[in-house]
Amino acid sequence: MKQHIHGGDVYRHQNVIDFSANCNPLGPPNSVKEAIAKSVDMIQQYPDVQCAQLRQALEVYEGVPMEQIRCGNGAAEVIFTLVLAKKPKKALLPAPTFAEYEQALRSVDCEITYYRMEEKNEFRINEEILSQITGELDILFLCNPNNPTGLLCDTALLERILEACVKHTVLLVLDECFVDFLEQPEKYTMKAKIPGCNQLFILKAFTKRYAMAGIRLGYGISSNLSLLERMQQATQPWNVSIPAQAAGIAALQETQYVEEARTIIRQERGYLKNALEILGLHVYDSKANYIFFKGPENLKEKCLKENALIRDCSNYPGLASGYYRTAIRTHPENEILLRAIKNSL
Amino acid sequence: MKQHIHGGDVYRHQNVIDFSANCNPLGPPNSVKEAIAKSVDMIQQYPDVQCAQLRQALEVYEGVPMEQIRCGNGAAEVIFTLVLAKKPKKALLPAPTFAEYEQALRSVDCEITYYRMEEKNEFRINEEILSQITGELDILFLCNPNNPTGLLCDTALLERILEACVKHTVLLVLDECFVDFLEQPEKYTMKAKIPGCNQLFILKAFTKRYAMAGIRLGYGISSNLSLLERMQQATQPWNVSIPAQAAGIAALQETQYVEEARTIIRQERGYLKNALEILGLHVYDSKANYIFFKGPENLKEKCLKENALIRDCSNYPGLASGYYRTAIRTHPENEILLRAIKNSL
Repeated sequence: MKQHIHGGDVYRHQNVIDFSANCNPLGPPNSVKEAIAKSVDMIQQYPDVQCAQLRQALEVYEGVPMEQIRCGNGAAEVIFTLVLAKKPKKALLPAPTFAEYEQALRSVDCEITYYRMEEKNEFRINEEILSQITGELDILFLCNPNNPTGLLCDTALLERILEACVKHTVLLVLDECFVDFLEQPEKYTMKAKIPGCNQLFILKAFTKRYAMAGIRLGYGISSNLSLLERMQQATQPWNVSIPAQAAGIAALQETQYVEEARTIIRQERGYLKNALEILGLHVYDSKANYIFFKGPENLKEKCLKENALIRDCSNYPGLASGYYRTAIRTHPENEILLRAIKNSL
Repeated sequence: MKQHIHGGDVYRHQNVIDFSANCNPLGPPNSVKEAIAKSVDMIQQYPDVQCAQLRQALEVYEGVPMEQIRCGNGAAEVIFTLVLAKKPKKALLPAPTFAEYEQALRSVDCEITYYRMEEKNEFRINEEILSQITGELDILFLCNPNNPTGLLCDTALLERILEACVKHTVLLVLDECFVDFLEQPEKYTMKAKIPGCNQLFILKAFTKRYAMAGIRLGYGISSNLSLLERMQQATQPWNVSIPAQAAGIAALQETQYVEEARTIIRQERGYLKNALEILGLHVYDSKANYIFFKGPENLKEKCLKENALIRDCSNYPGLASGYYRTAIRTHPENEILLRAIKNSL
């Protein structure tokens, strides 16, 4: 069977420090671990098909009515379900970006056109994308900050993109899975545009924010209730496990923890970017909890010999070989990464 | 949002004994609970996208090469993924049967025809179904023993159904999620037909066998590798969580436990059927770990007042009101059920 190539595959890479997945460097909060361990006593039951308690907690956390929130087995499942419910005929995807948008769209035989973010523009999204948002289009995915580049879309441009989507009845799926690691998340989220907007769907994940990728928990926010209802019909009823619902409810209490992670990431992002540039690498302007940079070929393999697993981004559409992404981790771990890269050059 | 109506909803029915979900009455084995609790230390990682260790364990348990096994977030996810990968245009479904086949087929706009199992035939499947298996058909779902009736399809007929499917290139999805609760599972499973047969897909679940519905873990077996590959492309890579993979690996060691459950179910099935008949109810010939019977309207509501939650089957296509399904649980629990039903009549 053909294998998916992704970050985070510590199963085929033993005894490494994993810089290839972009999770909170603090690891999961204890309260989350405890909630999962405690949930073990309930596993003979089916999970709550309505995720009622979790969605109530999200209502408070996000300030959005729970009717507008749909939970999934990771944000990735939300993407697949959304695409199956919507069955778009024509999609626009930026390149490079997160691979699952394309995989999900292909599962419903959707025709894909690309908006290519070019190296000469430092892989930034610019207003040229507006000309590609036309009445023929059904759906547009945007990841902000983008994965794998970590670049932020200018807010004024993002608003114009949404306006164009509304004008042409294009569904804008805005992936804000990494927005909480920004210095000022509230400045960049488009959540305020949700009320009354049928063409906006915001995607978020617990995976990264609380370092619980193994549990699988993500959610979508939209005021397009008929779309959410169609999503419900296009998935199994019990898609979010009991441990995941329990973990999510506990995690949402961890505001201090997220704040702390944000501080570490800010400090370490500056430190790592600077150090990588001193090593002569071209580093892009990531605002997220990971850094995208250009390096020599085979850097991933060389770093692996030093027990550091980074993400080789050459399999992203729109990228050639020689591009890499590394998570920002704790200072001692980042030191190990820098040593590995230095020794590899 | 419209709500799914299913068994096992203990969230909207507090302080009841749940006879509406069909899980192993012994509850989850301790080893499974321990494996989940232990897996908590790994949750900052993504799950293994290949489910390699779990599929190796299943290879031993099922006696089927791991390449022919695909795991999912519950058997229900496997159904949706299979349907999305196959995109059938025309399906044949027995009625009454498990509702998720139809829900999944509708998600890809598949046209559905029914083979109606009639009350006058005690809801048995008979050879008339063969005339409905034609070249126009793409897929046929069969649940054996059937849910909600618990009835077994005659093995000779099942073989003729498979032959007809092979002849007309129809994919037979054989749901054997309850086969392990039969007295002689090995006599009824069609697993021996898997090798070299592109038209057979067998569905199995951990949910019921090990009473771990809250964890979500199921799998499909087929030698149709190109279908399995298409399924992989039609799902997110990380669909099976770390706790689920760990739970599955531990569960497969629990042969004694499954044997013990089988003994209890055999004894209690006889006891419950007899007692229900003495109460004047029409009881069908279930061979599974649940019993299907006919009773007065509002029996579910009346039993609820006695803190016993049974499954009202009136929302199954092909069933009118007045049909019920109850799980077979431990003897003291079954006594409570019988008292509740008696008081309701």
